Amino acid sequence: MAPIDPDPYVRGILSGHRRMIAKTMTLIESSLKEHQQAAFRVMEKILPHTGKSIRLGVTGVPGVGKSTFIENLGVYLADQGHKVAVLAVDPSSRRSGGSILGDKTRMEKLSAHENAFIRPSPAGETLGGVAAKTREIMLVCEAAGFDVILVETVGVGQSETSVASMVDFFLVLMIAGAGDELQGIKKGVLEMADGIAINKADGENLPAVEKAKTDLETALHFIRPETPTWSPPVLTCSSVNEGGTKKVWDMVLDHHQKFKATGEFMQRRKHQSLDWMWTLVEAGLRKRFHNNKIINEKIPAVSEQVENEKISPSAAADMLLSYL
Amino acid sequence: MAPIDPDPYVRGILSGHRRMIAKTMTLIESSLKEHQQAAFRVMEKILPHTGKSIRLGVTGVPGVGKSTFIENLGVYLADQGHKVAVLAVDPSSRRSGGSILGDKTRMEKLSAHENAFIRPSPAGETLGGVAAKTREIMLVCEAAGFDVILVETVGVGQSETSVASMVDFFLVLMIAGAGDELQGIKKGVLEMADGIAINKADGENLPAVEKAKTDLETALHFIRPETPTWSPPVLTCSSVNEGGTKKVWDMVLDHHQKFKATGEFMQRRKHQSLDWMWTLVEAGLRKRFHNNKIINEKIPAVSEQVENEKISPSAAADMLLSYL
Repeated sequence: MAPIDPDPYVRGILSGHRRMIAKTMTLIESSLKEHQQAAFRVMEKILPHTGKSIRLGVTGVPGVGKSTFIENLGVYLADQGHKVAVLAVDPSSRRSGGSILGDKTRMEKLSAHENAFIRPSPAGETLGGVAAKTREIMLVCEAAGFDVILVETVGVGQSETSVASMVDFFLVLMIAGAGDELQGIKKGVLEMADGIAINKADGENLPAVEKAKTDLETALHFIRPETPTWSPPVLTCSSVNEGGTKKVWDMVLDHHQKFKATGEFMQRRKHQSLDWMWTLVEAGLRKRFHNNKIINEKIPAVSEQVENEKISPSAAADMLLSYL
Repeated sequence: MAPIDPDPYVRGILSGHRRMIAKTMTLIESSLKEHQQAAFRVMEKILPHTGKSIRLGVTGVPGVGKSTFIENLGVYLADQGHKVAVLAVDPSSRRSGGSILGDKTRMEKLSAHENAFIRPSPAGETLGGVAAKTREIMLVCEAAGFDVILVETVGVGQSETSVASMVDFFLVLMIAGAGDELQGIKKGVLEMADGIAINKADGENLPAVEKAKTDLETALHFIRPETPTWSPPVLTCSSVNEGGTKKVWDMVLDHHQKFKATGEFMQRRKHQSLDWMWTLVEAGLRKRFHNNKIINEKIPAVSEQVENEKISPSAAADMLLSYL
């Protein structure tokens, strides 16, 4: 069979042809070798046309109102003429059978908007695989002229790290509640945040929200900022009261402008690309290791010996590596 | 040359012979292949005699009074009949020419104590190398009958992660100051803490210390505890007022007893051993990659192309891996 010609895909993407955009994404998500090779060639050709967007990651545990928040933000931006793509990283989507964003009706208004494009999370066996595909889908959207990319992730597993490492701004959505509810945040997530928005800041919630805001500001005080250019703000927003969406977007724009001015915007992206290359190199090395049949047979017994202190971790590592 | 016979070393360690303990550590720290092989054989033989200690990691940025704190704690324990070993992980020790604990006179009272053993940080080019040696030195101390191991680390670089992953309890020392000083804590360090002690809680500092304690408790509130067995406490201590050392040690003992009772103590150690094996496997894989001459020559140019978006991170990773 002749290899798939990448050029129709490339032309389709660059002219913003929705059907070709979606077909390219299907190639990217396919596990067939010929599809992957075609996707690879398409990606190389569209690469010079990518990068001209603001990439915003949004995380938050189930129940914080993430879908509604993203829909409101998406409509707000699309109404202004922005072309908005909404993607998702959800490594649980295969197992659960469902997927965040799997059902576009969850964002009914946004999905009907001519300036918006919504794509559910790619399925995949590993978070790394899901994240890799989402990265490429993001680049396809950029090449197709989308200038705001919203990447949603569920607040479970390690998906936040993956999303934070592919976006320009990482937003953590929270809600205030009866004292302990705010504990729902996972280790490390607070430290990845470029900004925090406490959602559902309306009605009876308001006093709890104000308390949560103060507490969060205190907590953030203990985290040394990565750069003097930016200290993560804590905002409040609501799907009932207007204005919160604008406040959040203004924060993202403020960050964007400041980071552009100092050069940190490009620096962060370069850093992310290089990090991503090394992540893939390490994944490739691990794959070679685990694809080795002898090693794979030895791992369970060796692991057990290490756990029970029959052999040292370094002897075990040397032994396993010697089979490579 | 005949290989070094490990048995005299093993016998020396198990009988608590100081000179042989020190000589074994010198073997461990040596970069000579025959020394490393001998150290390896010694380690395998002493392994069944290790593990019977409480391993306490202590971190804190320069200026928090870490040396004095460790000396006080060490003397307090040694006076009670504990055999106390003080080790250090300081990846800067080679570069700076000096080393934390390099000068034993910094812990004059403790180093003169018959129940104490102080060892400066091994030198090493990588944090991984330094940490690996410290782990083995810790095991030598345990086989020699030391029942409390204090592992000190400087509050710079990534050394906290290494130390946290080799101890049973990770203590973060802080000081209160004029508002912003507490920001000195690094990203992630708070989340690794099993307990926090605010040092220099005396005299004029007391109001600031109380404020810092409350703020820290608020901040910790946002970090989901790893286990229902334990929420990291925030204590205060001082080298001027007595009592703080005992309070800190009681906290460590409380943690120890609770984790022993639930089985989490052994679980954490098993987990650390297995993690360590995988860390070494990955380091070994990376070494093979970087020792490849062609790959090494290609890396700078490929990295630059990735940074400047001439090629995609995944194409770059594939290309580099193809030379392996």
